[in-house]
Amino acid sequence: MNDRVVALCGGIGGAKLALGLVHVIDPERLSIIVNTGDDFEHLGLNISPDLDTVVYTLSGLADRERGWGRADETWQFMQALGELGGPSWFHLGDRDMAMHVERTRALRSGVTLSSFVARAARTLGIRARILPMTDDPVQTVVETEDDRLAFQQYFVERRCAPVVHTLHFAGADRAVPAPGVLEALSAPSLRAVVICPSNPYLSIDPILAIAGIRAGLMNAAAPVVAISPIIGGHAIKGPTVKIMSELGIAATTASIAAHYQDLLDGLVIDEADADDAASLDVPAYATRTLMNDLPDRIRLAKETLAFADTLSTGGRELAGQAIATERRRPS
Amino acid sequence: MNDRVVALCGGIGGAKLALGLVHVIDPERLSIIVNTGDDFEHLGLNISPDLDTVVYTLSGLADRERGWGRADETWQFMQALGELGGPSWFHLGDRDMAMHVERTRALRSGVTLSSFVARAARTLGIRARILPMTDDPVQTVVETEDDRLAFQQYFVERRCAPVVHTLHFAGADRAVPAPGVLEALSAPSLRAVVICPSNPYLSIDPILAIAGIRAGLMNAAAPVVAISPIIGGHAIKGPTVKIMSELGIAATTASIAAHYQDLLDGLVIDEADADDAASLDVPAYATRTLMNDLPDRIRLAKETLAFADTLSTGGRELAGQAIATERRRPS
Repeated sequence: MNDRVVALCGGIGGAKLALGLVHVIDPERLSIIVNTGDDFEHLGLNISPDLDTVVYTLSGLADRERGWGRADETWQFMQALGELGGPSWFHLGDRDMAMHVERTRALRSGVTLSSFVARAARTLGIRARILPMTDDPVQTVVETEDDRLAFQQYFVERRCAPVVHTLHFAGADRAVPAPGVLEALSAPSLRAVVICPSNPYLSIDPILAIAGIRAGLMNAAAPVVAISPIIGGHAIKGPTVKIMSELGIAATTASIAAHYQDLLDGLVIDEADADDAASLDVPAYATRTLMNDLPDRIRLAKETLAFADTLSTGGRELAGQAIATERRRPS
Repeated sequence: MNDRVVALCGGIGGAKLALGLVHVIDPERLSIIVNTGDDFEHLGLNISPDLDTVVYTLSGLADRERGWGRADETWQFMQALGELGGPSWFHLGDRDMAMHVERTRALRSGVTLSSFVARAARTLGIRARILPMTDDPVQTVVETEDDRLAFQQYFVERRCAPVVHTLHFAGADRAVPAPGVLEALSAPSLRAVVICPSNPYLSIDPILAIAGIRAGLMNAAAPVVAISPIIGGHAIKGPTVKIMSELGIAATTASIAAHYQDLLDGLVIDEADADDAASLDVPAYATRTLMNDLPDRIRLAKETLAFADTLSTGGRELAGQAIATERRRPS
């Protein structure tokens, strides 16, 4: 029985769908490949925002209002840091600090990021497999009009205000997928690969920039389905539409389909964009993609998998062979 | 006018008297040389327990009940750390964490401990000069029956339970006094050097183990006065009496006087031990040494300085020349 699912995701939006998925399938058959291009060192701590959002969301510790960080969080550390004149632009909650301190300690002692995440997830009762895209350093760099900014500088410190010219993923060309990533994508019992409705440019592209992972998707023996983060020309959260506009891309489902190109076997689009379906180059399924609560997440996860079950992987596999050969690197 | 005062101190007990001193003299004429033998790295953070106790006490941020850490402290970080399986034996409050994170960041970037402390103290409105005994690593090592323990392992993790055989101060022989320490001790306008009622073996000896500082005390142009931490055969707080007993030393004011030997020009003893005064080798002044509240601290500071004003430095200076020559090392 093909019962394994792989999800690719960034932070908040992606984690919502991942939570839906663990309610729809056996969590132990789910692998979630998470963007680490946003990871950075701050205050001497190694911070992995997207991994933490996924871990907190799946363990039930996440703050549902903010989307990031932990529920019932307190901010005494930040207040005291400010009193000492320390930098206050990146908010670290008191409980959240434990994750950063423990991760930093682990990485410094030679533990890999993937081992640390696996241990933390297990400790917090998570049964799905959460995988960083790589254990190697990859840094999403945002080239703006005036500056070259590390992702968190752009995203948090500058609140996405600067106009984006280009995005690149420093180190991605040398990074190898974390242990478990390629195994998950090449599992014979794979049912579907789901690209979550995360920001394609900021959250999914860093994952796909690792040649081994892109090749793994191309060669996966199951349909690859993305959920469009665009709803009627708008993005639900975050700077997706602003960035698309700055990069000269129309905020349409067609742009999302074109962006993922031949990686995709199908695209889930919002019911508001149902009329687009006929003109897309890829099979599309229209439904309500907004996820306000857990039932929304479960329903979207269920419909996405059911849609994937109707798709063939033929076209992508052929295309995939060519691209994979071309882009594959020794690992 | 001789109006400068130097105090030597460890953590809680010493900080109380230091707080008394800033109420009695112009704080800008007070230099406090603080033990760093208890400093250690924990969770990847550089922690300086005695320095922090002095900084928090003088800035009014200290918790008055516990004596260590900050008032109105919260413990969300520790709780979350425990949930992640991290070590929970050393308690770090949420607000307190800011100091450790900022210190660690400063030290890693090449800032000295003394510069960091000076900046933190200034930021928190402290006008007295707080000096670590050294910027070099010195580690108080407790040799017990079974084990060789780093100070915090002995003091916090093992709660002073193991029987102490010997204490030594690893690195003290190579350590040089922090900038400002020798200058404070050799100031011509020095009125007194006060050895606070800290644990002589655990808190003051690490400071005196740095040859340059011991020589500086011997050569100081003002009386050196200690306050005995023993009251009628008991210590107010901490393991002083237990350690004295394990080291085969009677818990008496005479033992304290003998311990500091020719460094001292005078010893302040508790009124409960007033009868000892006649038999001591050093001039003694008996008063109430218990410091329950701020008026107690101010009164004891005032009386200690008044007592110092009555003392001559002649004997120590002669002895000091010999010892200083013998123990002085290039710096």
